Amino acid sequence: MEFGIVGLGRMGGNMARRLARKGAQIALYNRSFDVTQSLAEETGHLACDSLQALVDALATPRIVWLMLPAGDATEATLQALRPILAPGDLIVDGGNSFYKDVQRRTAWLAERQIEFSDAGVSGGVWGLENGYCLMFGASEAAAARLRPYMEKLAPASDRGWLHCGSVGSGHFVKMVHNGIEYGMMQSLAEGFALMKNKPGFELNLGEIAELWRHGSVVQSWLLDLSADFLAQDQTLENILPYVGDSGEGRWTALEAIEQGIPAPVMTLSLMMRFASQGKSDYANKMLAKMRQGFGGHEVKEG
Amino acid sequence: MEFGIVGLGRMGGNMARRLARKGAQIALYNRSFDVTQSLAEETGHLACDSLQALVDALATPRIVWLMLPAGDATEATLQALRPILAPGDLIVDGGNSFYKDVQRRTAWLAERQIEFSDAGVSGGVWGLENGYCLMFGASEAAAARLRPYMEKLAPASDRGWLHCGSVGSGHFVKMVHNGIEYGMMQSLAEGFALMKNKPGFELNLGEIAELWRHGSVVQSWLLDLSADFLAQDQTLENILPYVGDSGEGRWTALEAIEQGIPAPVMTLSLMMRFASQGKSDYANKMLAKMRQGFGGHEVKEG
Amino acid sequence: MEFGIVGLGRMGGNMARRLARKGAQIALYNRSFDVTQSLAEETGHLACDSLQALVDALATPRIVWLMLPAGDATEATLQALRPILAPGDLIVDGGNSFYKDVQRRTAWLAERQIEFSDAGVSGGVWGLENGYCLMFGASEAAAARLRPYMEKLAPASDRGWLHCGSVGSGHFVKMVHNGIEYGMMQSLAEGFALMKNKPGFELNLGEIAELWRHGSVVQSWLLDLSADFLAQDQTLENILPYVGDSGEGRWTALEAIEQGIPAPVMTLSLMMRFASQGKSDYANKMLAKMRQGFGGHEVKEG
Amino acid sequence: MEFGIVGLGRMGGNMARRLARKGAQIALYNRSFDVTQSLAEETGHLACDSLQALVDALATPRIVWLMLPAGDATEATLQALRPILAPGDLIVDGGNSFYKDVQRRTAWLAERQIEFSDAGVSGGVWGLENGYCLMFGASEAAAARLRPYMEKLAPASDRGWLHCGSVGSGHFVKMVHNGIEYGMMQSLAEGFALMKNKPGFELNLGEIAELWRHGSVVQSWLLDLSADFLAQDQTLENILPYVGDSGEGRWTALEAIEQGIPAPVMTLSLMMRFASQGKSDYANKMLAKMRQGFGGHEVKEG
Repeated sequence: MEFGIVGLGRMGGNMARRLARKGAQIALYNRSFDVTQSLAEETGHLACDSLQALVDALATPRIVWLMLPAGDATEATLQALRPILAPGDLIVDGGNSFYKDVQRRTAWLAERQIEFSDAGVSGGVWGLENGYCLMFGASEAAAARLRPYMEKLAPASDRGWLHCGSVGSGHFVKMVHNGIEYGMMQSLAEGFALMKNKPGFELNLGEIAELWRHGSVVQSWLLDLSADFLAQDQTLENILPYVGDSGEGRWTALEAIEQGIPAPVMTLSLMMRFASQGKSDYANKMLAKMRQGFGGHEVKEG
Repeated sequence: MEFGIVGLGRMGGNMARRLARKGAQIALYNRSFDVTQSLAEETGHLACDSLQALVDALATPRIVWLMLPAGDATEATLQALRPILAPGDLIVDGGNSFYKDVQRRTAWLAERQIEFSDAGVSGGVWGLENGYCLMFGASEAAAARLRPYMEKLAPASDRGWLHCGSVGSGHFVKMVHNGIEYGMMQSLAEGFALMKNKPGFELNLGEIAELWRHGSVVQSWLLDLSADFLAQDQTLENILPYVGDSGEGRWTALEAIEQGIPAPVMTLSLMMRFASQGKSDYANKMLAKMRQGFGGHEVKEG
Repeated sequence: MEFGIVGLGRMGGNMARRLARKGAQIALYNRSFDVTQSLAEETGHLACDSLQALVDALATPRIVWLMLPAGDATEATLQALRPILAPGDLIVDGGNSFYKDVQRRTAWLAERQIEFSDAGVSGGVWGLENGYCLMFGASEAAAARLRPYMEKLAPASDRGWLHCGSVGSGHFVKMVHNGIEYGMMQSLAEGFALMKNKPGFELNLGEIAELWRHGSVVQSWLLDLSADFLAQDQTLENILPYVGDSGEGRWTALEAIEQGIPAPVMTLSLMMRFASQGKSDYANKMLAKMRQGFGGHEVKEG
Repeated sequence: MEFGIVGLGRMGGNMARRLARKGAQIALYNRSFDVTQSLAEETGHLACDSLQALVDALATPRIVWLMLPAGDATEATLQALRPILAPGDLIVDGGNSFYKDVQRRTAWLAERQIEFSDAGVSGGVWGLENGYCLMFGASEAAAARLRPYMEKLAPASDRGWLHCGSVGSGHFVKMVHNGIEYGMMQSLAEGFALMKNKPGFELNLGEIAELWRHGSVVQSWLLDLSADFLAQDQTLENILPYVGDSGEGRWTALEAIEQGIPAPVMTLSLMMRFASQGKSDYANKMLAKMRQGFGGHEVKEG
């Protein structure tokens, strides 16, 4: 056994399940051992109760795949793994880390001859059944070692995984992917909002979403998902109009600014999410006061 | 007496006051006669209790200046005036009508040899003291008749009024003016929002607004107004983050689309106002559901 | 024979071909008779050399499907058909007309008891093989008569066509569909632009587009198309950066402004197309001059 | 003599001139000694031919005001000054440095008991006559030492300068100021573009800009500047539609993303500048190819 997964949340857990279905046997570690044990029983994988145990369980050269939240969790685990791994071992960061952090860590791990690879993973909760879309950066040698696992995780052995380039490129490509996702989602949402409120037509948004799935130019997975939930309830009356955002949408906007390349739709989609979080309230109060100041327009107080 | 004002609200009332201060005597009409009487007593102008009375009080060729809300109020008054005015009389629409409506009405009034002029008026509640900025469309002949009144209403006899071109051009220029206003306001508001929330600096927004009034590139009347209210209260904690919008911001955006000329900042400023009015809620609910659909992200229910 | 198509361009021609493959026999008319004859030979449909001939060839109650450019061509053909059709006949406007024009025409045709239906058709050049996505507005009676043809034109007899509601709703839904398309396209394009120019990674955009087709959240038909052309040439060096726009992108933006619902991404996508057409040049010249005015920044002259 | 200026370009040179007019005598240093000598002759200030000479010429505790391009020039000069200044000396960075760089440098200079202050300076080429708008961060003690110079540089001794807060706050406030400037400029430019191209009205943009300066809500210094150049030439036919951008517009956009506060207008103004620089070409080529792919729309090749 040469391959272990650290982090068995929604993504990591299902990836372990998919590898089991495809006949791979691997080692598992999760902060909470209950989760590890339960998943090991389900899959036949090996449960490890510490990072050291996982490292001990793997034959060298090892592959340790981290499926952790970007930021502190990933950083702390890398700090813990670095001294206990051996030269030639390979760590894969499968979370959504910033590509510049990846590049920094690559150099830092290389000081101990530990290889590093960054794998962007798309596919969400559907990946277990359909396979994950994997975009990774790695040296040629590391890519060759990862290939058998990529072939099992991806939708088909020759499709849905790509060695994009040097380390960092995987998360860079995933970052842009998510930026595109922001814009596509926002565009779909705006369109349905225009139909929802259209007086006179009483449109059935669930039927329209389903319709467009068949032959239209906007066919997409995001539309498929929308058709699913709109078929059940198109009022969305119990949903709060709050849209979270995660690092990659922000990083894509930063990247556009840094490169000096216009990405207005991706950036604006991010900012509309900020607005949904109430973050434009002060600006709006200023505007209300300015209107009052020059035109005597009423200001709503509350 | 040749000149009458119809509509004595915030704008029309103060314009009547300014004309009185400058020595003009005019006739007044307002839907509510109390308002007319009270203003006539204050200014020495003539109070009329009906449109017919106002028409009767004026010597031909008359000038009737409407200072009414665009839309139904203006349309109804024009319908009432058309049959009771004489050929050669001149109606001025000083409200914020859409310039295409102006052009349509010009032709319709010309059928009875009634002249029409459209005057965009800026200056808000400060116009009484400082003078109004007036941009109007009219024939050359009508412009010559209006000149003495423009000279009194404007900040100075030779500054602050402009015969922009043919009828319609006045409201077109005023429409663009307001579109610009939307963008400038939004830009100022965004900037103060970034400073309001900046951890570590505890910036005094009132002092900063006052500072920028002296020598900086963003010196502007909108900044002056902001400095005023921020000096009193920079928390704005009792203000609701709701920003109204009126016709001209929308028309400017429509104009950009019709001409095919990018006006992203003016248009987006308008849409941020829509968002402040809660009009992006359905789109945001859709986005929250999509995120749940592909990534299992939590949806807030309420 | 009850069904005729008027307008045999890229869309109309292929729709006639698809109907032939599905066993329907129809009448054809095109402004240029060469096109009509050639298509009739290929499909076995009936070639008509005038609108009158097409009307004469069809049994009542007739169905005449217009597949013409919106605007003058559609208007002129409706003017020509109205007097020569009989009460009970049904005209379908399959072009991209503005839904408010559809509503106006519905009333005008109803004066002669001619039924009207508006059918938005998506699917482009791929519709012949895969079927068209059809969204139409019609009375219940008209919808029933159209059903057999919808079943043949759509991807499957029970999928890809929808009677959306009353007349006008079809083109309304299609309009919003195209607005969404604008935003999705822009988002994809922005993302690839960020990858194209990324120093250090030398990403293969064709491989990345192909990758994302398998399991990723941005899976979409627009991505499929992008993967096709990027596989052939990802430099795009011989393509001019000029993006055309058509009525529906503009109408969607107008609709958002009219309803007062934010659609910033769809609207901005439209405006970026205007910019690609050189329509922001004057604004940019103004900006360059302002920068020179306050900061002495160099202005490029040419 | 306690005060020296390093960097005598457009800004630094005029600041030295203004200080001379106000009766201060200072030391000057510029990379090119010709410039230093010429300005010293004009102003009566002391010409120094090296940083060391400037340091030697000043009595302790010194104030050395850098008026250099942000980035390498400022960094190199700080590196050179740090070892040759004495504890208690004060460096002022008057360029447009990023506020996080300021904070980093503050700590690094404090290791040698050198004080640091960051002064954002607005006013451009007009500052010599009208005074500069100065926003600076400093300790209380440093602020007290800078006060006499602020009073001379500002439009009036008590207006136009502000001690915003701790070191870093000056450039933070200046950064936001410039972000606002981007949005105000863009809004004005969009408005004039809509008027420039308006068929039927033949508007005189120079007259309109001048008009709005008197009593309108969009009164602003940027409008004053626009009125100046439009009065001379409103065709702008010899100007290239290329708009440069500098660090502060980008940093403001980054700040908005980092804080998670919507700043769509400021950000979009920046991106429209990128577009004016041809940086959306690849995205536009992608869009043209997608349109060809699904709809057979013509692609312009060149």
